[in-house]
Amino acid sequence: MNMFSIIEKKTKKEALSFEEMQYFITGFCKGEIPDYQASALIMAIYLNGMDEREITDLTLIMRDSGETMDLSSIPGIKVDKHSTGGIGDTTTMILTPIVAACGGKVAKMSGRGLGVATGTVDKLESIPGYRTALSAEEFLENVRDIGISLVGQTINIAPADKKIYAIRDVTATVKSLPLIATSVMSKKLASGADKFVLDVKFGTGALCEDYAEAEKLSHYMCKIGNMTGHETVCYMTNMNRPLGKAVGHLLEVQEAVETLKGNGHADVNELCTTLAAEMLSLAGIGTFEACRLKAEQALKDGSALAKFKQLVARQGGNFDVIENPSLFYPAPKEHIVYAKDSGYISFHRAEDIGIATAQLGAARVNKDSKIDFTAGLVFTKCYGDYIRKGEELCRLYSSSDAGFKDAEFYVDRAVNYIPGDFTPEPLISQIIRA
Amino acid sequence: MNMFSIIEKKTKKEALSFEEMQYFITGFCKGEIPDYQASALIMAIYLNGMDEREITDLTLIMRDSGETMDLSSIPGIKVDKHSTGGIGDTTTMILTPIVAACGGKVAKMSGRGLGVATGTVDKLESIPGYRTALSAEEFLENVRDIGISLVGQTINIAPADKKIYAIRDVTATVKSLPLIATSVMSKKLASGADKFVLDVKFGTGALCEDYAEAEKLSHYMCKIGNMTGHETVCYMTNMNRPLGKAVGHLLEVQEAVETLKGNGHADVNELCTTLAAEMLSLAGIGTFEACRLKAEQALKDGSALAKFKQLVARQGGNFDVIENPSLFYPAPKEHIVYAKDSGYISFHRAEDIGIATAQLGAARVNKDSKIDFTAGLVFTKCYGDYIRKGEELCRLYSSSDAGFKDAEFYVDRAVNYIPGDFTPEPLISQIIRA
Repeated sequence: MNMFSIIEKKTKKEALSFEEMQYFITGFCKGEIPDYQASALIMAIYLNGMDEREITDLTLIMRDSGETMDLSSIPGIKVDKHSTGGIGDTTTMILTPIVAACGGKVAKMSGRGLGVATGTVDKLESIPGYRTALSAEEFLENVRDIGISLVGQTINIAPADKKIYAIRDVTATVKSLPLIATSVMSKKLASGADKFVLDVKFGTGALCEDYAEAEKLSHYMCKIGNMTGHETVCYMTNMNRPLGKAVGHLLEVQEAVETLKGNGHADVNELCTTLAAEMLSLAGIGTFEACRLKAEQALKDGSALAKFKQLVARQGGNFDVIENPSLFYPAPKEHIVYAKDSGYISFHRAEDIGIATAQLGAARVNKDSKIDFTAGLVFTKCYGDYIRKGEELCRLYSSSDAGFKDAEFYVDRAVNYIPGDFTPEPLISQIIRA
Repeated sequence: MNMFSIIEKKTKKEALSFEEMQYFITGFCKGEIPDYQASALIMAIYLNGMDEREITDLTLIMRDSGETMDLSSIPGIKVDKHSTGGIGDTTTMILTPIVAACGGKVAKMSGRGLGVATGTVDKLESIPGYRTALSAEEFLENVRDIGISLVGQTINIAPADKKIYAIRDVTATVKSLPLIATSVMSKKLASGADKFVLDVKFGTGALCEDYAEAEKLSHYMCKIGNMTGHETVCYMTNMNRPLGKAVGHLLEVQEAVETLKGNGHADVNELCTTLAAEMLSLAGIGTFEACRLKAEQALKDGSALAKFKQLVARQGGNFDVIENPSLFYPAPKEHIVYAKDSGYISFHRAEDIGIATAQLGAARVNKDSKIDFTAGLVFTKCYGDYIRKGEELCRLYSSSDAGFKDAEFYVDRAVNYIPGDFTPEPLISQIIRA
C-alpha cells in the first residue's frame, strides 16, 4: 500500500478501503505522509466525493486517532447535541439546562469560535471564573451530581481532524460535505454519547448556504450515526437571519438567561424547546410531545434557570455578571443604528451581521487573538418585525469607537426592508432521521 | 490575489486568468507558495481541466520561468521535432541528419531517460567522447557551420516545469493532458524554434495508452503552437509495438546508423522519412512529396550518414564504437530468447519490452543511477513477422547474467503469437494540424 496509489484510486472516483484510509490517516498524523500528498488526496475527495461506507469508515478511523470519552459511569441514555454554527446561536446554553432540569444527562464538550462564527466555550468564559477546562473525572462527576456539565475539549479528541482541517483551510476544500460530516461525527463519536441531535443550519449565515447541501450533509451525518449504532436526528434550521436578538459573548449569555427566565424571543424559544424535547425523548424520558411540554414547563417554573445557575456555580462562574456586568468589565461604548428605510426586517446576508460584530471585537480573527467579551450587538427589532425609517434597529457595543462605522456599514448591508406583504420563513424546515 | 481564491476558482471549474496563473507559477518557483497549495491546485486542474486559452497562457508563463534560446543567428526557418517517448525510439538520431543533409537547420535539445523510457541524450553519450553539454554559443555555431547539433539542455529551460512535475510525480497527476501539453510546449517554445513537428505516441508502450487521449493531447499542443504563432503538426504514431529492432543505448545508435546506411526496418524508415519530410516542408524547402523524395535520396546516397558522422566528430564522439564496441566497452553477455509459440508477432504490452531492458541495466531507475550503455535487446523477428515456436525471437545483452531470467519473463509476457490471419496496425494513424 502506498499513498500514490491511494490518491490515484480517488482520482478515478473509486472507493477507498478502510485499510487505505487508515494508512493515510495514521501516516499523516505521524508525519510520514507529506502535506502535499495529503492535500492532493483531500482535493480529489473534495471533487470526486466519497460513498456512505467510505464516510463511515473514515469517521471511525478519525475518532480512533485520539482519545474517546467514557460516559459509562453516567446512568441512562446520554444524548449529545451539536450545531453546525450560526450567528447569535445561544441554543446550547438554553437547551442543555432545560434537558438537565427535565432529568436528561448532559455531558457536553463545546468548541471555540474562529472567524466570524462564535463558540459556546468562549461565551461561557465571558462569565468570570467559569472553568471550561476540567479534567475528564471532574467533568463526569459534575454530570453525575447535577446532570450537566458544559466544557471545552477535556481530552485529545480526533487529532486527525485538526490536521486535516488545517490543510482544508488553506486549500479551499473546507466545504466538502463528506469531510464536514466525518469531521463532526468523528468528534461526536469520540465524545462518548449514545445518541445525537444535530442542528444543521442553512442559509446566508451558515456554513452550508445552500439548502440542498445542508440537506445532503444531514443525510450523511444521520447515515454515519445509524451505521455506527448511534441514533441521530438532524434538524435543518434557518440561518438566513441571526438567531434571536443578541450577537456576541456576554450579550448572548444574557439573552440565554432572559430566555431561561421565560422572556425569550419566539425563535429562540421554539428552537430550544424543540431540540430539548428531541434530546429528552431520545433519552427515553417520554414521547416527543410529552417532552416538549416538560421543556416548556421547565422554562415557566424556573427549574431550567435554576439548573443553569447551578451549573455556573459548580464550574466556578459568578452569575452576578448577568445583572451587573460593570462589576467585572468596563462599560462598553454604545452606538445606536437606526433603520434606513421602512418595512419588515429581513436579511440579504446574515453573515454580514457576524462580520459587523467582528468589527466590534466580538470575534477571534486568528487563533491567538483576544475576544472583547462585552462587544457585539443587540437587535431592538428582529427578523420579521415591522420598522419605520429612523426607528432604532439595534445597539452596537464595543470597548472602542473605532469599529462602529464599519460595523454599521455591515449591518446596513445585511438588512433588507421589505415594504409590502411579508411571510417569514419557518425556523425549522425539516427533520431528518436517516 | 491569493492562492486560496485561485484554488477555489478551479474547484468551481472556472478558468484562471493569465495573472492568476502567473501569481501561482512565480510564487511557487520562489518558494513562497507551499507545496500543499500547489498540489491542491494541480489536483483541481487534473480533475477539472483547463480550456485552450488557459493552457496557452500557462505554457507562455512556464516558458518565461527560465531562459529561452535565441536561434536568430541561424538563417532560415528553424523546425524542431519532439517525441512523447516510446520503446526503441531511434527517430531523432536518424531524421535530424536527414533534415540537415537536405538543407534544413537542426538545433535540437533532447532529454534523458527516466523509468523504462530511454532518452536521446543518454543514447548519444554511449558514443565515447560525444559531448552533449555544449555552451549555447558552441551549440549555435555547430548549427551554423554544419546544419545540425544534438545536445542536452544547454540553458535553464522552464524550471517551473521541473517543480510542477516533481509534485505531479508523487500525487498521481502526471497523466493530465493539459499539463502534459503545457510541459511539452513550454520547453519547445523556450528552445527557440519557429515551427514544430510532434511525434505523439499512443498504445501500450506510450505515455498515452488511450488513442482518444493521445488525439486530444495532439489537438491541445497544435492549439498552443498555433495560438502562439508557431505552426505545429502532430503525427500520431503507433506504440503498441517497440519501434524497429533495437532497444537500449548503443544498440539503438547502431540501429540508427544501419538505418542511415539504407538497411533500416520498414517502420523506422517510414517514420523517419515522413517526419523529416514534414520538417523540411515546414522549413519551406519544398512540398511534402518533394521533401520526402529528398529524404529517401539522402538515405540512399549516403549524405544523411555522412551528416551524422560529421555531427559525431564535431561534438567529439568516436564513430568507431559503432563497428567495434569492444574497443571501448567490455563485451556484454548474450542470452537468446526463443519463440514460445508459433504465429505473427504482436504485443500484449509494448511497455513490458521496456521493463525487460530495464532488468538488463538499460534504464535509469532513479535520477542518479548509471546506465549500462551496451545493455538491451535486439529483435531477430519483429512486430508483424511470422515466427515458429523454437525459432530465435530476440537477443538480450547485459554486463551480468543476473537480469536475463527476469528480462525473458517480461519479453514472454509482452509477446503475443497470433496464429491465424494477421493485419498489422498502420504505424502512422493520423496527422493533426489544429
